[in-house]
Amino acid sequence: MANPRQTLASLAVCCYTAAMSQAQLTTHMMHEALRQAQLAASSVGEVPIGAVIYQPDGTILATAHNLVETLADPTAHAEVLAIQQAIHKTGRKFLEDCTIAVTLEPCAMCAQALSLVRISTIVFGAYDLKSGGTTNGARVLEHAHHKPTVLGGIEEEACRTLLQQFFQTLRHKGEGA
Amino acid sequence: MANPRQTLASLAVCCYTAAMSQAQLTTHMMHEALRQAQLAASSVGEVPIGAVIYQPDGTILATAHNLVETLADPTAHAEVLAIQQAIHKTGRKFLEDCTIAVTLEPCAMCAQALSLVRISTIVFGAYDLKSGGTTNGARVLEHAHHKPTVLGGIEEEACRTLLQQFFQTLRHKGEGA
Repeated sequence: MANPRQTLASLAVCCYTAAMSQAQLTTHMMHEALRQAQLAASSVGEVPIGAVIYQPDGTILATAHNLVETLADPTAHAEVLAIQQAIHKTGRKFLEDCTIAVTLEPCAMCAQALSLVRISTIVFGAYDLKSGGTTNGARVLEHAHHKPTVLGGIEEEACRTLLQQFFQTLRHKGEGA
Repeated sequence: MANPRQTLASLAVCCYTAAMSQAQLTTHMMHEALRQAQLAASSVGEVPIGAVIYQPDGTILATAHNLVETLADPTAHAEVLAIQQAIHKTGRKFLEDCTIAVTLEPCAMCAQALSLVRISTIVFGAYDLKSGGTTNGARVLEHAHHKPTVLGGIEEEACRTLLQQFFQTLRHKGEGA
């Protein structure tokens, strides 16, 4: 069984031996999350947000993208779906040694859910000044029992651009209708 | 289709015609939530928290209790399970005209989830100074786009006592082991 105290730091050390720095590692993780976000973008009307949960050895445990429109469920955020997948896959109640990479700052619901499953590290891309609840808004982790390490702004421009393009296309469609 | 602007107030008015005041109505709702909490208590090791979602005509749309231990999922809170049930049952994305009664103050995850599904009113029993995120802790609704009406402390003593008894029994079992 993996040591529950393993964090992104130890994962970075592990990958450092394979010539990957922590910056390279978080970028690598975010590229995978961006791939998930693009899957959401290819679904009709789905806001492109993707999430990937990594195990401490660098393997992927769960991948998900936003499915709010597809499931007609406003709580079907990428992080929540990835957590559900990871829990069902492993049969483990807690993800203490895992890292989540998500393209947009988690909202208050997702930040608290990630704290409840005791995830080690949250790596996110674009900051969400309007609906974020991690480094913006309610900053729920400041009040949480388990406080994951948070690394924001990873591949920020790529994550933000993907969202901006989606909303621009949506507006153009609206204007053309 | 029910008017999405119907709130607890209009529900109270509706029930007032049947000789039920708003205080009586919230008490009635909380008794139903307490019954759900007792179902959780009868499950092995499940913290007794119950939730009920009401439609504006006073009928029950969804009932749930905490299933964190049963499902080995720290996010399986009564409110989240009730929301899922209500969404699947109605096929509706939003619960704008509904009221949730829950025996314990919702945490940050549940408060944000209830805001996302645009629930009209949150009626809760015991205040949760340690893990609450509604009137305590992160107070996520202060930052949310949709801010449900919140009525806390309904049948507070009964809700708190049920929880205290559960934890006392747990401690006695621990001492006896």
